[in-house]
Amino acid sequence: MKAGDLTTPALLADAAVLERNVATMSAARPGSTLRPHVKAFKCTSLANRLAEAGHLSFCCATVREMEGMAAAGLGNDLLLANEVVDAAAAVRLGALVAAGSARVTVAVDSSATIAAAVAGGVPEVLVDVDVGMPRCGCEPADAARLADDAQRAGLKVRGVMGYEGHVQHVVDADERAALAAVAMAVLAGAHAEVGGDVVSGGGTGTWDCNETVTELQAGSFVLMDGDYARLGLPFDEGLVLLTTAVSVRSGVHAALDGGLKAMAMDSGDPRLVDDYGGAASVLFCADEHTTVAGGPWKVGDRVGLRPAHIDPTMAKHEVLHLVDDATAGGDAEVVESWSIDLRGW
Amino acid sequence: MKAGDLTTPALLADAAVLERNVATMSAARPGSTLRPHVKAFKCTSLANRLAEAGHLSFCCATVREMEGMAAAGLGNDLLLANEVVDAAAAVRLGALVAAGSARVTVAVDSSATIAAAVAGGVPEVLVDVDVGMPRCGCEPADAARLADDAQRAGLKVRGVMGYEGHVQHVVDADERAALAAVAMAVLAGAHAEVGGDVVSGGGTGTWDCNETVTELQAGSFVLMDGDYARLGLPFDEGLVLLTTAVSVRSGVHAALDGGLKAMAMDSGDPRLVDDYGGAASVLFCADEHTTVAGGPWKVGDRVGLRPAHIDPTMAKHEVLHLVDDATAGGDAEVVESWSIDLRGW
Repeated sequence: MKAGDLTTPALLADAAVLERNVATMSAARPGSTLRPHVKAFKCTSLANRLAEAGHLSFCCATVREMEGMAAAGLGNDLLLANEVVDAAAAVRLGALVAAGSARVTVAVDSSATIAAAVAGGVPEVLVDVDVGMPRCGCEPADAARLADDAQRAGLKVRGVMGYEGHVQHVVDADERAALAAVAMAVLAGAHAEVGGDVVSGGGTGTWDCNETVTELQAGSFVLMDGDYARLGLPFDEGLVLLTTAVSVRSGVHAALDGGLKAMAMDSGDPRLVDDYGGAASVLFCADEHTTVAGGPWKVGDRVGLRPAHIDPTMAKHEVLHLVDDATAGGDAEVVESWSIDLRGW
Repeated sequence: MKAGDLTTPALLADAAVLERNVATMSAARPGSTLRPHVKAFKCTSLANRLAEAGHLSFCCATVREMEGMAAAGLGNDLLLANEVVDAAAAVRLGALVAAGSARVTVAVDSSATIAAAVAGGVPEVLVDVDVGMPRCGCEPADAARLADDAQRAGLKVRGVMGYEGHVQHVVDADERAALAAVAMAVLAGAHAEVGGDVVSGGGTGTWDCNETVTELQAGSFVLMDGDYARLGLPFDEGLVLLTTAVSVRSGVHAALDGGLKAMAMDSGDPRLVDDYGGAASVLFCADEHTTVAGGPWKVGDRVGLRPAHIDPTMAKHEVLHLVDDATAGGDAEVVESWSIDLRGW
């Protein structure tokens, strides 16, 4: 099947780019030194490609992702790199352990999250440490106390995690490395007090400069996005939203049938795959359309867009179509169609 | 069931606000003078409430919405207010007509869209006219020719449509009305040449100043959002994302477990339902979290957020929970849970 036969908007992934990106990351971070972050793609078929490349430990952001990965036989070592305080959610995690379908580790950063893990039957935890981004994670000075509390409550403390999310998108590589070093010094300090085998953190932006973590929590590298592309990393953009030009005012503008319900807008507008040497550009996105200017389009043309942010774009689609060349528009050959099966909560 | 028993993030709709907003709109635009726009809420259960209020004609933006509305028995008069050029999509629309499950009208603005309607077996069309927003719609001067072409091709031309989307969010009411009048003069001019019973257009922002349309295409008014709330319309905000504070740095910030995968970001950050007299505020949204500052929160608290844009927020969720008081956090009583069943394409 050709991509031109798909109902648009349709999300395409370039098979060769995916393979190349995974190979590049695997060479630098082999086996369990990479803990691919499922939140970036929410797709067990794509996770299987990473498992085939030797990465059998995964990182999740939601309970639904944990359940889906376990159901797909990818439960070898699942980390929920997020805090859980809801009793029902903790019970869902514990049920995976009781069923023998997953090894489950959860992040804790408070007495309440430790209590939830115990009550839900989650046996293993990492102490989540704030390394500079105001989100989750305990004060570094509290890490040792929380680890003691967790152990006393019967939990196995595997180590620490800390995500330097505020550093990932710093464009200058030297500045990014310097900021990552500051953040990771905090995590290393907490690890010295907590102990354990695992120091988990990092992401696509710090893939080559984070020397502290024993496992890198990266996901975006698999298909990249416009925001990460600015960093000049050796990973290529492989994600394209294929649209159809449904209305064309010749020489003025065209309306494409994919808009902000099909692409994430938190990192800005998408870019055109083919901007005709800079002669064409995106004007704005509406709910169901993207208006573009300057191209030679005619009604019915298939037009590709590069989303600015991969994670929430994937979460908007039911299917990801793996194609031989995502830049080929409607002429691309569809190799496989993968369910984006880990959406929701 | 209490909202506090739901897994968060959970999307809540205030039952009383919904009822009041529908009553206000129905009083001004009764029966078929309102064609509610399904794209705003993507939920047949909510559409049923509008049907119960006497509105039996609906407006859709996607083929999936058309199919879902027909399947739910709401196919009395469905307008796809969007252009279709894809042959398979047109066939899906024609199948609804052939099955007798819907009256189907589609927007046309080019020879290609007329040809698709004919080929797909869609019997009725509106000529879509550009009234000032660069998206879909023909040049006004082309409307009569397209209507003739459609009629010669065997289609019934019911009239015209034109959406003054560039006017909807103008905050000043007088300026909004003046701009709407300019746009609608264009549509009235096209209508004079095309003929037909239907002049379709408008939205929540021009609900009381668009004097031209025979039917108003409004949807956001049902539950509103932060962007429309700035206009001071007599519709209340009724949509809340209920989250849980999963990590709290006392007196500094809290991380709530709903972020930009659960709320649309194209119109900016959400607001807190309760900002404690201005003492608390949203700092930023990440994929799975919203970081808020200044509140008295403790881990496990349920915290409500008001999304900035209703349409794409609804599209991110599987379920909308109708509650007695969406501002009551975890104490709200869940009256009904509605499937958001019209997502996708």
